[in-house]
Parts: sequence; C-alpha cells; structure tokens
Amino acid sequence: MTEFDSSLMEQMRRHRSIREFKPDPLPEGMLEAIVSSAQMASTSSYLQYYSVVVVEEVDKKARLAELCGNQDQIRQCPTFLVFCADLHRLKRVCDREGTLIQTGYVESLLVAAIDAALLAQNAALAAESLGLGMVYIGAIRNEPAQVIAELGLPNLTFPIVGMCLGYPAVDPPSKPRLPLPAVLHRERYQAKAMDAHLDAYDAKIVTMEMFRHMETGEVYGWMARAARQAAYTDPKRLRVDVGRVLREQGFGLK
Amino acid sequence: MTEFDSSLMEQMRRHRSIREFKPDPLPEGMLEAIVSSAQMASTSSYLQYYSVVVVEEVDKKARLAELCGNQDQIRQCPTFLVFCADLHRLKRVCDREGTLIQTGYVESLLVAAIDAALLAQNAALAAESLGLGMVYIGAIRNEPAQVIAELGLPNLTFPIVGMCLGYPAVDPPSKPRLPLPAVLHRERYQAKAMDAHLDAYDAKIVTMEMFRHMETGEVYGWMARAARQAAYTDPKRLRVDVGRVLREQGFGLK
Repeated sequence: MTEFDSSLMEQMRRHRSIREFKPDPLPEGMLEAIVSSAQMASTSSYLQYYSVVVVEEVDKKARLAELCGNQDQIRQCPTFLVFCADLHRLKRVCDREGTLIQTGYVESLLVAAIDAALLAQNAALAAESLGLGMVYIGAIRNEPAQVIAELGLPNLTFPIVGMCLGYPAVDPPSKPRLPLPAVLHRERYQAKAMDAHLDAYDAKIVTMEMFRHMETGEVYGWMARAARQAAYTDPKRLRVDVGRVLREQGFGLK
Repeated sequence: MTEFDSSLMEQMRRHRSIREFKPDPLPEGMLEAIVSSAQMASTSSYLQYYSVVVVEEVDKKARLAELCGNQDQIRQCPTFLVFCADLHRLKRVCDREGTLIQTGYVESLLVAAIDAALLAQNAALAAESLGLGMVYIGAIRNEPAQVIAELGLPNLTFPIVGMCLGYPAVDPPSKPRLPLPAVLHRERYQAKAMDAHLDAYDAKIVTMEMFRHMETGEVYGWMARAARQAAYTDPKRLRVDVGRVLREQGFGLK
C-alpha cells in the first residue's frame, strides 16, 4: 500500500465481517489462545475492567439470537462471545480489601466499555489470524435485561458487544472506509474540510452499487443510508432501555 | 505458546506500554498508513462514528500534557493522537439529507465510544508492527471541556482516549494479565469460581515485586492496588465532569 506496511496491517485491511459460518466447531484450545493473547491489550490503570462470556450451547445461542434482532449468524456460528464491561470483579476485590468501589459516574461505564472494546478488537484480529471469521453484534444491547438474565451477569457488569466466531462459509469483499482526511484531523477538528471528502466517498459507494432500494432497485450512497439510520426514532432501534438497565446494574451514569 | 498461534498473536503478547520516547519524529506518511489500515476495524452499522485529532505542535502537546494530569510522555512523544466519539460528521450528513439525528440516549455515546476504541486498538497494533511504541492516555477525559476547546471539537464529539506514539527509548517488561478463568466464563458468568484465580494472580504479582510502597518499601499485590484505586473519591480522579460535558456536547445520556 505504502512504504509503511506490515503483515499485520495487511491482515487488517483484508477484514470483512463474516455472517455465514461452516458448522465446524473451533478446535479445542483455540478460543483460550485467542482470548489470552487478546488480554495483553492495554487496560486502564492495569485494572482489567472486562469479562467475556462464551456461549456454545445450541439452545442458548438460539435464545440470544432472538434477543439480538433474530440475527441468524448467532445461531449458525459455533462460538458466540459476549464482551462485558465488568466492575463486579473489582467490587469483589474491594470487598475483600475493605474499600468501597465508586461507580456513580458515567466515567465508570466509559472506562470499562473502552477496556472491553480494546480486548474485543484484539480477539477479533487474533481470530482472523488463525483463519476464523467474525462479526460484531451490537444488538447484544437490544434487550439488555434479558441478555443479563440469560448470561447470569451480576451487578456492575453490562454486555458491551457480542462476537460471532467460526470458519467462514462465504468470502465477501471488504467495504471501503471514509477517506482519511474525513477522519484524521491535523491539530484541530476540521469540520468544513470534510464535506468534499464525503461527496467523493459517496460517489465511490454509488459506483460500487453497494446499496439498492429493495422495491425500486434504485442505487443509493453512504450518506443517504447513514442519514436514514441515524434518524430512526423506533425505541427498539434507539435502544432506549440501555440507560435504565445500566442504572439497575449499578452504573450511576452521573 | 499453544498449537494455535500466529505472528500477530505473538506481537500482541509482547505488548507493553511505552512512556519514554526518542525525539525522532514519525517518518512522513507513517501515521497515515497506520490510521488508514486501522479504519478497516469493524464499525457499527458501517456508520464510522469516530475521528482522530493528531497533535504534533510542541506547545499544544505541552498544554494537553497539563490537562492530562501533567503526563510527561505527552510532551515527549512526537505524535499524540486523540480518538474521539464523533456523531458530528453524521449530523452534517443528516443535515444535508434532511433527516434529524437522534442523540438522546446513552446508547449514542456507547456505540461511538466502542467504534472509537476499536479504531484505536487497530492503530495501536499497526503502530507496534512498524516498530513504534504507544501508551493510551485515559486522562484525556480529566478536563474534557478544556480538551474540547484546545482541539476545536464540535458539538456531538467527545475525546474518548489519547495515544502517545513514537520510537521507544525504553524496553520495559510486559505486565501479566488476570488468569484466563477469571476473565473467560463458560455459558454463564461464574462469579465465585474467580476468587481462587484472583488469589493465585495476586501471589504472582507479589513475587514479581511489581508494586512497592514508596515510604515503607513493602511489596503489595494487584488486589491491594486495585482496591485502593477503585475507591478513590477525589472528584478529579472520578472524572465527575465527563457526564456534564457530554451533555453540553449534545449526548443526551438518557
């Protein structure tokens, strides 16, 4: 790509989400190798605010699929991971040591969500490096109370993102990302400068015919799609329960 | 490590945060290669809710160092990145397309923070694959209003995490992470099963003499340190301003 490249960066650029999996399970020990390598991701103050619940039972995966907008890839993949923000472990440690954990502020959620996401992205890349495919499931936040019940998630934990893992049954192309100048800002955020880059990006997506109206067959671009999605007012799509359930789990969100 | 391994996973396991940098700048074009490869990280609904502000001006880095608990590595590193949750770009798109972006719920923050963290972790690994060192700066959230002013961050953006990049001037060891069974749960969260693993981990950290009281010289473990840090009540450490500033930036947090 440029003179600055590595096999790791090449692998990153080949990433595409996989939504159809072969039935083969992960070989014994592979998941453990993936997650323990992933744990070496940076973690805020060395506190390791995360847990991963691995679900492989067929019925449980089916129930989670239902709770995540009925996404069939959760049923199909042999291994489904739920990356959780976890202050519960730290609370156990505080209880043992006789201190009182602070969880009243939105910062407590942010720090744990970021920790969980860093772990998840390491796991994604490690899995891909072993020939697996993956897709994130943000819909794990669609019905947080029911997911929490299904996984037995205690107080001070919350499901941040799901991940289907398995051997790919398909080989879709990668989707081009926004032009770098629309994302990378020098010294200050450059709001107006990005507009021309958005136009160029949109034209490229249209040329690729990536999105098409089901009824009319009309091709549309990234901007039309994004503007529609960002404006959904359906409470399910807005995930209006997330805040309430976070508070019920002990995250103060002040 | 096990029969399931890759050069990418080996690199992950070698990770250690770097807090002292050589003065050499990044070669021209290297940052662009890192961030554009990193952009291939998964992104929720293909909406790309993130921006990166790169700061290389010496005075600006010094001001940001002050705002981040006076961390000298921000002054020292040639390139400082601020990964931002960004719904502003999407709002511009909505304005052009005539739709109304929804930002009232804590979900809007979560989805963008996760997106920004996935991008950041890809960038961290890409940078390390090119021989750079990095450390995350969570303290970018210490004084969010002033960081926002310094970087000209518009409405609907928020600094999620900072990152120092540069050539390492030191070669510290990696810090061992929690035992896998304390982090990876089968089918359901296993709260009680983790306690024995925490004890074993603590004993290992004590043996390594990683933490030592400055005054008494006494060695202490991960649990004692974690229990103290999680219980800080100092408003600065709790980052009590994050919620207010998020709301000022247009994140509803309902």
